[in-house]
Amino acid sequence: MENVDSLLVHGTVVTMDADYRIIPDGAIAIRGDSIAAVGPSADILEAYSAEDVVNCEGHVIIPGLINAHTHVPMTLLRGLADDLRLDVWLMGYMMPTEQQFVNPEFVELGTRIACAEMIRSGVTTFNDMYYFEESVAKATAEVGMRAICGQTILKFPSPDSESYEAALERCRQFIANWHGHPLIIPAVAPHAPYTTTDQILSDCRDLALEFDIPLHIHIAETAQEVSDHREEYEMPVVPWVKKLGLFDAKVIAAHCVHLDRGEIHTLEHNGVGVSHNPSSNLKLASGIAPITDMLKIGVSVGIGTDGPASNNDLDMIEEARLAAFLAKVDTDDPTSLPARTALDMITRMGAKALHIDHLVGSLEPGKRADIAVIDMRRMHNWPVFSRDPNAVYSRIIYAAKSTDVVHVVCNGAWLMRDNILSTLDESILLEQATEVAQEIDTFLIAREGDILSKLLAIGGLEREESFEVQVKAHIDTREPLDRLLAHPDVVVVKQNHYKQYDTYFEFGPPNYERVRYREDDYIDAMGNVENIRTRLTLTSREKEREFPSAIILSRSRFYSPATRPLRFYREYFQAEVEREVSKERLRWHIRYRGKPMYVNLDRLMSPQRDGFFVEVKSRTWSLKDAEEKASMIAEMLAYIGIESDALLKQEYVTLASKLGASA
Amino acid sequence: MENVDSLLVHGTVVTMDADYRIIPDGAIAIRGDSIAAVGPSADILEAYSAEDVVNCEGHVIIPGLINAHTHVPMTLLRGLADDLRLDVWLMGYMMPTEQQFVNPEFVELGTRIACAEMIRSGVTTFNDMYYFEESVAKATAEVGMRAICGQTILKFPSPDSESYEAALERCRQFIANWHGHPLIIPAVAPHAPYTTTDQILSDCRDLALEFDIPLHIHIAETAQEVSDHREEYEMPVVPWVKKLGLFDAKVIAAHCVHLDRGEIHTLEHNGVGVSHNPSSNLKLASGIAPITDMLKIGVSVGIGTDGPASNNDLDMIEEARLAAFLAKVDTDDPTSLPARTALDMITRMGAKALHIDHLVGSLEPGKRADIAVIDMRRMHNWPVFSRDPNAVYSRIIYAAKSTDVVHVVCNGAWLMRDNILSTLDESILLEQATEVAQEIDTFLIAREGDILSKLLAIGGLEREESFEVQVKAHIDTREPLDRLLAHPDVVVVKQNHYKQYDTYFEFGPPNYERVRYREDDYIDAMGNVENIRTRLTLTSREKEREFPSAIILSRSRFYSPATRPLRFYREYFQAEVEREVSKERLRWHIRYRGKPMYVNLDRLMSPQRDGFFVEVKSRTWSLKDAEEKASMIAEMLAYIGIESDALLKQEYVTLASKLGASA
Repeated sequence: MENVDSLLVHGTVVTMDADYRIIPDGAIAIRGDSIAAVGPSADILEAYSAEDVVNCEGHVIIPGLINAHTHVPMTLLRGLADDLRLDVWLMGYMMPTEQQFVNPEFVELGTRIACAEMIRSGVTTFNDMYYFEESVAKATAEVGMRAICGQTILKFPSPDSESYEAALERCRQFIANWHGHPLIIPAVAPHAPYTTTDQILSDCRDLALEFDIPLHIHIAETAQEVSDHREEYEMPVVPWVKKLGLFDAKVIAAHCVHLDRGEIHTLEHNGVGVSHNPSSNLKLASGIAPITDMLKIGVSVGIGTDGPASNNDLDMIEEARLAAFLAKVDTDDPTSLPARTALDMITRMGAKALHIDHLVGSLEPGKRADIAVIDMRRMHNWPVFSRDPNAVYSRIIYAAKSTDVVHVVCNGAWLMRDNILSTLDESILLEQATEVAQEIDTFLIAREGDILSKLLAIGGLEREESFEVQVKAHIDTREPLDRLLAHPDVVVVKQNHYKQYDTYFEFGPPNYERVRYREDDYIDAMGNVENIRTRLTLTSREKEREFPSAIILSRSRFYSPATRPLRFYREYFQAEVEREVSKERLRWHIRYRGKPMYVNLDRLMSPQRDGFFVEVKSRTWSLKDAEEKASMIAEMLAYIGIESDALLKQEYVTLASKLGASA
Repeated sequence: MENVDSLLVHGTVVTMDADYRIIPDGAIAIRGDSIAAVGPSADILEAYSAEDVVNCEGHVIIPGLINAHTHVPMTLLRGLADDLRLDVWLMGYMMPTEQQFVNPEFVELGTRIACAEMIRSGVTTFNDMYYFEESVAKATAEVGMRAICGQTILKFPSPDSESYEAALERCRQFIANWHGHPLIIPAVAPHAPYTTTDQILSDCRDLALEFDIPLHIHIAETAQEVSDHREEYEMPVVPWVKKLGLFDAKVIAAHCVHLDRGEIHTLEHNGVGVSHNPSSNLKLASGIAPITDMLKIGVSVGIGTDGPASNNDLDMIEEARLAAFLAKVDTDDPTSLPARTALDMITRMGAKALHIDHLVGSLEPGKRADIAVIDMRRMHNWPVFSRDPNAVYSRIIYAAKSTDVVHVVCNGAWLMRDNILSTLDESILLEQATEVAQEIDTFLIAREGDILSKLLAIGGLEREESFEVQVKAHIDTREPLDRLLAHPDVVVVKQNHYKQYDTYFEFGPPNYERVRYREDDYIDAMGNVENIRTRLTLTSREKEREFPSAIILSRSRFYSPATRPLRFYREYFQAEVEREVSKERLRWHIRYRGKPMYVNLDRLMSPQRDGFFVEVKSRTWSLKDAEEKASMIAEMLAYIGIESDALLKQEYVTLASKLGASA
């Protein structure tokens, strides 16, 4: 009789080996970091002894679950912003917060929280991608879980690297430090084709080949990504990265929602593992990945939770259930992706997708002792039928809850026993997370209360001149304007013709700020739109000084190019009031006695008004200059016979509100 | 200071009232069966006192959840058969098992198990449809939960009624007995338009109106149902039942997966409540219901689990999460069905869909005290951000687990306190369920081992004559056959021409049974298919007696019309081997010296063979008669010059196997 470290006995052993062997009253012998034997309890108890014998009656013993794609430190951003469109969520909330808060301590804490949650739900291995990945590795190794840790490489600056060269160097250093660790497999993680360059992808491939480590990347997550890629490269994403030689490495491709059959065959031919992330793909409305086709064609597909900020948890049983459900509705066939396949995807096939099936994924002698034990005697998972041999898979996938997991062993070490975590103190983690969340709250609340910060958070801003002198009058014909342009002191420098579509987002107290989204459609001589420009302008409530025949506005005014669609800003700013103004504008850049000014001839389209408005404007940093220009504008108006009581002292948008434009 | 029965204090009260009021440090006073007051803890503690004061710090207090569509006794069939197509699942497993096992005791036990599971997950109200519904009502009332109990009405016999008239009478009695109960609202539940008749629907409507009770029905669950309905009635399901006056009653329509916009408007105009059942619709591949459109148009939509045999649990938090996820991917828009709406659907809007929003669904003074309290300090639901006022909804829907529910109150009474159930003993339920499951297992295992039982379970069978005399020979031209038909002792009674497509399902030891699915395509004089007939024939291994020039087969042989598609039988029988034979057949019904016989001229199409086969056959109950016919057949063959060594003694299907036909 041989002595081993632990014996798990009298459970239903669901081996997930190649024959899907199920041992009804089964046992497992654990020696060191590995499984020494698997078999009927009677045989194992005859051959092995141990001080630590765990009775698993009424439980199933399964391979430790594998989360094939996640960003574990994002536990600290869980629930920060939900039910938003991908760009608003990512560029409006996640990235600005990450840029501000992500550092090694944040990453370590977020990782520990994730480990606690994952162990509780039976997970022993995860495949990660984040910044400061050495901190993910450190925390995970201390906890005693297994992980593939992918250091993120982006073409733009990230929380841990000012440039992609720096990120690659950081990654190389990380890999060199962790290569050969018993629990951590370092990896290189170029974020995605659209956030890297061909050069980055090829450098990452070389690094992966040099150390023989996995390369973890997001592929074809959204339809937009794929259509942008097709437009730019005239081919879909997969053939493109294959052409770059990416698949020479051991690739793990996350998402793969929008692939055609040819691309799926390419993945299969090249041994690319896929991580399917159903919750994230639903929650962010990315789509339903063609998993049934992938499985038919022979791709190894694992399942991932994605980061807990887009899920919002790390529950692999729920994720596997959802994968089974989605495949059925996607193929109109309830026999698609049966429970056994779902469990396979989070055990043996998941390990294969991560290129580590020689180590983990099934309960077989020689493999690492990564094991989860589930109590199957809970009310929500009762009764038990024995007619169908697949019933045990069905019970695990369709009725068990992650909270039914009672024991977890990883690499031969106990991480949870009778629902008590061995290597983590959750009460401390809860406290530490509370502190971080409060800091993030303070940062975001300040930002939300201040539209300028909110605008700053999503891109660069330029400050404009502090003073604007402006006057506006209604005219029935353009004759007065022509007379002004013919004035002997007026020199016309340039003329433009365009249509302007303005959307104003207005905010209430204390600052009464206003963000204008303006689209300028430049019209050429033929009357066609030759160019479109969009930009944002932020103003706070103006301080006005009224002159007899002009208004000087003194205000802080910022602008930035609007790189995202109007819809983005609408959802991001969530203004109290929204108004629209559109007009056709002829603009002359003139000099009046040497002073640069604008003269506009506007025809309002919305709110609709007959006739024209003539507008004379100038901007300056100097109050003295502003006052001087105000007098000049008075002279100009007098010259063309516009009385000061004919002046319109409001902005068009105020007109819009009075006319009851869209709110 | 007023004394009340219980005070829940210091929790985040999520009222789900019309203003979606959230009270951060909130409290609820419970008096009798109702909510006496809701407000900030400080105010409530100043105005009310109670012996029972429960500190809910770190918890959210929400309205008890509402499961809008289920069949609770089916907990006892949970996991019995999964990953099967709807018809195989329903007609192959559920219905035969129900027909055998469902009785009042079964229903009571199944209901108690469901109640235990639902209370654990924060549910206080459910809307049920099953047989022996008075037993559901009885068990539920004893447990102390609230339910709308719908007695099923079907056009065919059911476990509780031999006819629909009997079912209606049983329903009327049930309603009369339970009308006015504080917890139970009896209802009439015509199963679905396709399983009832116009008369039944109209009788059910009258019954619902007579007692002013809800009418619960399945509507447009599958695309097949809708296309069948359109074919038969030339309109979709909703306008049809509206035309029948069904919507005069307070209708709760379950599923509504396949509706057009016009039908959704009809539901809204008629105040029909809908139950959306996402897990069931995915698991059975029924489709994704157009919930976003329904909500936009103003239909009250609740969420249901459907029966636990098609889910496989009763977890409303998971169900609401799935509803939110699905709406997003269905509309390509992650802002669709945000968390607050999802919670609304399982509280206030759910109550409205069930026509009981005057009683429950929100935490407001005067409403029934139906309350769930969730511990929000679990690792998988941490940290907490306070920037976004909707964050609490997001935490409940996207991260909480039903196992985080700690307290449940229904109608003012405690059903669960600190995770301990007050009115149910789960260990007893587990034991009782085990017994029932074992009986069902025994029944099904016996049936599965015996193809005859399996065939019997899904429809009527007829036994055929025990003896078959048959002979078969290959001929190059049809000349010998024509000579036989011209024989002076032969009278041709009738002639047919058809193509036969046979699929054989073959089973191994001990009985070596074989089920043949045969499609006969009758060909008319013009060469067109005029009629198609399908039937099943079961034979067990034949006992053969070989005569010099004929074979007498003695075997049990059963046949039945095949009312379902080939695919159904393929999935239901799961044969070890499958073979196909197709042929073109000319058949003459003849009398030879007064004895009825068949003469066939067959041209094999698959497995393909040149020339023809001539076959002479007769069936009889009598061995003596069989022997006599065998001699006659020998005479006939001799007459046309076929030697006994030219005879083919096998069946075509054996030929098929030898030719390596599909297996």
